[in-house]
Amino acid sequence: MRLIDARSGLEVLDRHDCLRLLALKEYGVGRLAVVDGLHPIILPVNYALDGDNVVFRTAAGTKLDLAVHRANVAFEVDHVDDELRSGWSVLIKGRAERVTNAHELARFDVRPQLPWAAGDRPNWVVIRPESITGRRLVSDDRFRW
Amino acid sequence: MRLIDARSGLEVLDRHDCLRLLALKEYGVGRLAVVDGLHPIILPVNYALDGDNVVFRTAAGTKLDLAVHRANVAFEVDHVDDELRSGWSVLIKGRAERVTNAHELARFDVRPQLPWAAGDRPNWVVIRPESITGRRLVSDDRFRW
Repeated sequence: MRLIDARSGLEVLDRHDCLRLLALKEYGVGRLAVVDGLHPIILPVNYALDGDNVVFRTAAGTKLDLAVHRANVAFEVDHVDDELRSGWSVLIKGRAERVTNAHELARFDVRPQLPWAAGDRPNWVVIRPESITGRRLVSDDRFRW
Repeated sequence: MRLIDARSGLEVLDRHDCLRLLALKEYGVGRLAVVDGLHPIILPVNYALDGDNVVFRTAAGTKLDLAVHRANVAFEVDHVDDELRSGWSVLIKGRAERVTNAHELARFDVRPQLPWAAGDRPNWVVIRPESITGRRLVSDDRFRW
């Protein structure tokens, strides 16, 4: 059953669809939002999945590395096709934390698919989702978010 | 002079470059972060520029419409090319407010370039930047954010 949000005109995606789309863009770029003082900030990061969790690397001591530790974050992945006037967006709300568990670290460090996350980004961060929601532009809608 | 951030390896863009890139993607999609309770959220919106300000439409009564009113927000526009391993990201930190000034409304409502923002999104929101910063992936760097 396709659910349409009456106010926005966007199709509501269920959790299963959201996870499928996140997997589709794995190793690509998602956008992370953290609250830095009174302001949210958004930073692009290359991400991978570990079950339903999102993982990425940070360089020690950077703003990103400091900001995400035990923080409430949002993580968004989307796909926009201007030509086809189609697109989708998946939003995770969750809690980020630096990975210190040796088993998790061992599992992440062998991932060959994140070669660009070189040795100077030694910290792994995991986002454990509290909610995963998504919206898709309905194909016969006019293009708009 | 090209400035490289030593920790991230990313090129630091000046305000002029950032504004040029924002203009390049005008009428496309940017990502807005607002703080909703204790959590940041990220939502894609089609945007236009009004001088250095970012403007977009919202549907009355939606979560987005309520969240942005007089709020500290972040707005991010980026371009990622997986093939060329290149990309850039521009981040605005500022304050959003619903536009009520008649002169501003008159100026925005005639914009033909936002046709998909139809009549059921009657509210204009403006983001007045407090800072505009940007980063570019250096071409000879390995691809990573």
